Amino acid sequence: MAGKSPEEQHPVKAYGWAARDSSGILSPFKFSRRATGDHDVRVKILYAGVCHSDLQSARNEMGCFTYPLVPGFETVGIATEVGSKVTKMKVGDKVAVGIMVGSCGKCDDCVNDRECYCPEVITSYGRIDHDGTPTYGGFSNETVANEKFVFRFPEKLPMAAGAPLLNAGVSVYSPMRFYGLDKPGMHLGVVGLGGLGHLAVKFAKAFGVKVTVISTSSIKKGEAINDLGADAFLVSTDAKQMQAGSGTLDGILDTVPVVHPIEPLLGLLKNHTKLVLVGATMGSFELPILPLGVGRKSVASTVGGSTTEAQEMLDFAAEHNITANVEIIPMDYINTAMERIEKNDVRYRFVIDVGNTLTPPES
Amino acid sequence: MAGKSPEEQHPVKAYGWAARDSSGILSPFKFSRRATGDHDVRVKILYAGVCHSDLQSARNEMGCFTYPLVPGFETVGIATEVGSKVTKMKVGDKVAVGIMVGSCGKCDDCVNDRECYCPEVITSYGRIDHDGTPTYGGFSNETVANEKFVFRFPEKLPMAAGAPLLNAGVSVYSPMRFYGLDKPGMHLGVVGLGGLGHLAVKFAKAFGVKVTVISTSSIKKGEAINDLGADAFLVSTDAKQMQAGSGTLDGILDTVPVVHPIEPLLGLLKNHTKLVLVGATMGSFELPILPLGVGRKSVASTVGGSTTEAQEMLDFAAEHNITANVEIIPMDYINTAMERIEKNDVRYRFVIDVGNTLTPPES
Repeated sequence: MAGKSPEEQHPVKAYGWAARDSSGILSPFKFSRRATGDHDVRVKILYAGVCHSDLQSARNEMGCFTYPLVPGFETVGIATEVGSKVTKMKVGDKVAVGIMVGSCGKCDDCVNDRECYCPEVITSYGRIDHDGTPTYGGFSNETVANEKFVFRFPEKLPMAAGAPLLNAGVSVYSPMRFYGLDKPGMHLGVVGLGGLGHLAVKFAKAFGVKVTVISTSSIKKGEAINDLGADAFLVSTDAKQMQAGSGTLDGILDTVPVVHPIEPLLGLLKNHTKLVLVGATMGSFELPILPLGVGRKSVASTVGGSTTEAQEMLDFAAEHNITANVEIIPMDYINTAMERIEKNDVRYRFVIDVGNTLTPPES
Repeated sequence: MAGKSPEEQHPVKAYGWAARDSSGILSPFKFSRRATGDHDVRVKILYAGVCHSDLQSARNEMGCFTYPLVPGFETVGIATEVGSKVTKMKVGDKVAVGIMVGSCGKCDDCVNDRECYCPEVITSYGRIDHDGTPTYGGFSNETVANEKFVFRFPEKLPMAAGAPLLNAGVSVYSPMRFYGLDKPGMHLGVVGLGGLGHLAVKFAKAFGVKVTVISTSSIKKGEAINDLGADAFLVSTDAKQMQAGSGTLDGILDTVPVVHPIEPLLGLLKNHTKLVLVGATMGSFELPILPLGVGRKSVASTVGGSTTEAQEMLDFAAEHNITANVEIIPMDYINTAMERIEKNDVRYRFVIDVGNTLTPPES
């Protein structure tokens, strides 16, 4: 099966948009999906969020993917078929599929509800699935996954604006919960106001946490405070502002997706607290030892969240009316959207209207 | 008082060895100490440990010290005079003075028993004391400090081999306790087998922890296992050994006093655990984001320990017969000792026999 072409590997015809080389340019692509297994949920995709990581992956900047590559790990839609042993959902339910579609199921992380840290985690695209065929992401008409990795999408939430919750939402929700950055009254710094950052502000406010947004310029100050509800704003290139903020934060969630200086951020932290890097996926940061040691501070990084956290986050978002601020785009706008993401020109997440704008490729 | 010469600043004549410039070469030096205040303990110094930091400080590599500089922050001796309000000790008691001789007493860290993180902490040399005069360290005939920063040296412990406990001992004891790296049965990595590293092995074994020593060569393997009681030894430059050790450690205490690669060390950690840097005091480490994030690992750094931890550590050391392996040297050997420290040629700590070999400078 693995030796066959993408169109022939599985019985169910599928289509989407794929990158074919390191240009990262996406174009229409025909492939196939497996039949619905006993534990599988088949999903007609309606919306798919576009993350900075999709851009990096389409260009294979991490060097671990193969082409053709169908990006997309923020997928919402409708369950169209469920396997005979599926108990979590039924046909017609609104569902979400995030960045994981499988894991080993046996390691310490899998048995302790931390599947995202399983060394054999299968991401929704660019990886080899249990059956030996590549996984293809959410920039496609449908997907199919084991019910463990399919989540109930709350009725109350709009599907387009809710699509980025899984994965951008859980990527900030999980570290805030795990590291105790969710305590009412504490003061959290959120670095970078993009897809992850703006959701971090919303979740933090819902937790009752005081939020200071930290950004390289003051351009987003108004929207951070007036639209997103942040309490304060610091321009990281303004030495005076940074000095005034010295030692004021109980923790920092840094969502910037590229390597950048962290020493100024360490200076904002109170002693014995933590800087959590959730944005960057590649490269090395410069870690100065003196500001770390004299304040017994630490630097951590996390990726995504567990399946339990994913559902919990969606339910919490519904309860607190948290969605992403999105710009809905048609499928054929994706290459322009990728260019704009690179220029940080989006407020704050593109979401592809897959259901209405992805058309079958001409045969 | 601050404008006067070191000999005239205080009423009590004192002498020791000081560095005069960034060569770091030490030579005999005459200065003075304050009279014993109500809360002070006056100490006749008998032994002083020599730390790699003393070398860095004598050369002012951190750029924050002034000359003349009398190093030494691992000091043991006999209380010769106690102030009228001192309750902790009496004349004739064996005592130890570490790296701190003062702090602000008011900040969060001071009131929560973490004086070593007070932003105004006064170290035992090279800082300005509350009275405006410089502090001078333990390479001297006597010292005087507020009783809060003077500790009862257990009767049971030999003074020479016990001198390095405060500060090298508490520098490894504190992070092991604080980060929960002291749980029986857990598996701790100790990187570097010098003054701090060899004590880390001894404390960890006393806690009931399994210890793997990690070093750049196999030279110290025999002594690590046979003399210090380590359970295993990994050569960090041996890719095969490092691969075999991948994901086996519950935490790492890295005692190497200079910047070095930490990515291979992160690979040895189990997911969700921590690398604690306690050796290096200057420079920046290269922190790779991928191995940090995919294992939700973190990197922290600590400096020393609190006054409470210092006494607790000394008492624990006495209970478990923990002392440093030392090479006792005369005062006038210090410059050669410094050269040997730089070459990592000491097993594992030089201790100056101050009581018998420091003679008053000719006037």
